[in-house]
Amino acid sequence: MATVPLLRDEEAGAAALAVFDDIRAKRQTDYVNNFWRALAHDPATLKATWERAQAVMAPGALDPLVKELIYIAVSTANGCDYCVHSHTAAAKARGMTPAMHGELLAVIAMAAQTNALATALSVPVDDRFKA
Amino acid sequence: MATVPLLRDEEAGAAALAVFDDIRAKRQTDYVNNFWRALAHDPATLKATWERAQAVMAPGALDPLVKELIYIAVSTANGCDYCVHSHTAAAKARGMTPAMHGELLAVIAMAAQTNALATALSVPVDDRFKA
Amino acid sequence: MATVPLLRDEEAGAAALAVFDDIRAKRQTDYVNNFWRALAHDPATLKATWERAQAVMAPGALDPLVKELIYIAVSTANGCDYCVHSHTAAAKARGMTPAMHGELLAVIAMAAQTNALATALSVPVDDRFKA
Amino acid sequence: MATVPLLRDEEAGAAALAVFDDIRAKRQTDYVNNFWRALAHDPATLKATWERAQAVMAPGALDPLVKELIYIAVSTANGCDYCVHSHTAAAKARGMTPAMHGELLAVIAMAAQTNALATALSVPVDDRFKA
Amino acid sequence: MATVPLLRDEEAGAAALAVFDDIRAKRQTDYVNNFWRALAHDPATLKATWERAQAVMAPGALDPLVKELIYIAVSTANGCDYCVHSHTAAAKARGMTPAMHGELLAVIAMAAQTNALATALSVPVDDRFKA
Amino acid sequence: MATVPLLRDEEAGAAALAVFDDIRAKRQTDYVNNFWRALAHDPATLKATWERAQAVMAPGALDPLVKELIYIAVSTANGCDYCVHSHTAAAKARGMTPAMHGELLAVIAMAAQTNALATALSVPVDDRFKA
Repeated sequence: MATVPLLRDEEAGAAALAVFDDIRAKRQTDYVNNFWRALAHDPATLKATWERAQAVMAPGALDPLVKELIYIAVSTANGCDYCVHSHTAAAKARGMTPAMHGELLAVIAMAAQTNALATALSVPVDDRFKA
Repeated sequence: MATVPLLRDEEAGAAALAVFDDIRAKRQTDYVNNFWRALAHDPATLKATWERAQAVMAPGALDPLVKELIYIAVSTANGCDYCVHSHTAAAKARGMTPAMHGELLAVIAMAAQTNALATALSVPVDDRFKA
Repeated sequence: MATVPLLRDEEAGAAALAVFDDIRAKRQTDYVNNFWRALAHDPATLKATWERAQAVMAPGALDPLVKELIYIAVSTANGCDYCVHSHTAAAKARGMTPAMHGELLAVIAMAAQTNALATALSVPVDDRFKA
Repeated sequence: MATVPLLRDEEAGAAALAVFDDIRAKRQTDYVNNFWRALAHDPATLKATWERAQAVMAPGALDPLVKELIYIAVSTANGCDYCVHSHTAAAKARGMTPAMHGELLAVIAMAAQTNALATALSVPVDDRFKA
Repeated sequence: MATVPLLRDEEAGAAALAVFDDIRAKRQTDYVNNFWRALAHDPATLKATWERAQAVMAPGALDPLVKELIYIAVSTANGCDYCVHSHTAAAKARGMTPAMHGELLAVIAMAAQTNALATALSVPVDDRFKA
Repeated sequence: MATVPLLRDEEAGAAALAVFDDIRAKRQTDYVNNFWRALAHDPATLKATWERAQAVMAPGALDPLVKELIYIAVSTANGCDYCVHSHTAAAKARGMTPAMHGELLAVIAMAAQTNALATALSVPVDDRFKA
């Protein structure tokens, strides 16, 4: 249960509704997911987050699917269950296969364990790794 | 400064040295980085970690460069400075361009901020995101 | 579902019950929330936690509402859903308005993203920021 | 040592330099701190981060000093040493006294410990804490 | 709800089923818990994780119960609710008493708070603590 | 470099000095480590932290060495370099052998990786693991 009520369309103000409409248009779906409905209490943050997300997740030097895999990795390390779910769904929609999902999780788990080892050992950074 | 001394070749036992030799052969370099020299105090974990890392990071459904980007993402979220450095270097060696690096960081930052928002709002997972 | 049963008044020992009574008296309510009922299995930690919490959260150089905002920020970064809920409720009870809540979340999200960027870039601390 | 070189003014491109100039003008100082010099490799993220930071940290329903305290709290929980240093300096510049600093740290520590207890006990959220 | 369906025996492939059988034989129970059923989509990671877990958690210089306490501590700090539950159950099965559980939580909470204080203060490591 | 100056004996106030003296007496050493010298700016938190630490780390249902191992585990997961160093030194002083250190790190790494897998898979808690 959220710490704020999720706003239905008829409860959202004009500024929030404009973002909902843009989400619908850009994604070509009527569905607006819970994250945006919770954020709608603060239309300024809603708009800034949605606009920045579009810019960041657009095709560029990295493929949108690769960006979704990175998003899942960060969300997992930060323990955000909502984000793990929403971006796993987004990655599948962009073509993530079960084999890719499996390898993604194996890399996340490998990193988590070597992160822990390097931290517990407080390994000094090799000179050759410094920019 | 590490919580254990980094082992030079002449200080490492036979089991650890065998792993050092394999690292050198597989990577075609004489250089063994500090992480493995710190782990060498425990040859069983050294060997298990090195072998699992090779299996996990090998080409498969995901490209090795993509795997390095995911590794950087997890290491950043976990705050492992050593790992951020070593895998940023590894990603560059595998072809990560400055533009790719920039987009990687933008996605990591985007995920970190929406992770925080979703957690502070405790947004319930949409039914359609559940497997 | 907790990893231990929540103790009702009639299940709690005398030492735990004394803390429950103090919670009721200080907060002027009959309600003892789940956190304390779970902690009641270890009356020493229950008592130490409750007493320290009162000392720390009391008015001082910082206003109690400001302290609640800080509490929400830490709880969000640590991913503690229970704490996010209980301290969001506490902050509202102390006067947090929706506008303040929105700004709090915007700052938390801003910090989360620049934390990630600074860590991924391993930015060295400027001399002028050192005490 | 950063994972990228810090860009001096003469190494930064025009877009990054324009942000540096805006930082100098808004802060009324010649000094541009290391975070922005590291971010300057990606002028789009540099500009987006600087502009969002100004909007988020401006006076509003919460005082700018309170926002800095929240920033320190998040940065501490996320283990970002650079951010802890830069925002502790910023908070002092905005009037944080040693007494306020002490109380801030006491609240952060209190939250950290109850976050851990609530997580280890997996305490279910009380109905009355739900929005 | 998991991000992948939990595989029942009749849905798992031969490689995954062989691991399920080994789990049953080693633990002398018919029950295979959800973690392994979710991992079964990727039999290679399932097998590697199960085999490494057995090696790591076996009696050695540290007692298996002590290893379970350490596992709970890490899982708590990482905010993994599933792991907190499964390893609290495992620790109880290995003889963790309520008094031990209480002391474990008190140490976890103590560490969490001093971790936060040391990070917020950025305390430099004493020379005598370096290896 | 700390965010506050470390206080030498002659700079500390009477209340902080009394804690320093107690640390010296209880530990039977003249050395007061940096953590306490940084905390000395806030004598109330210094005293509360020192007193709670003594109560929590005392022999009880768990051995003091086991408590130090748990402390290292939490400090690693929280990424606190100072705490990893100080408690690794404390554990060695209490009898942690290299073999024990190696097994501790192997368990920490194992937990870190299964924490990540369980979170990325969002595995639902088995009914039998609930209290």
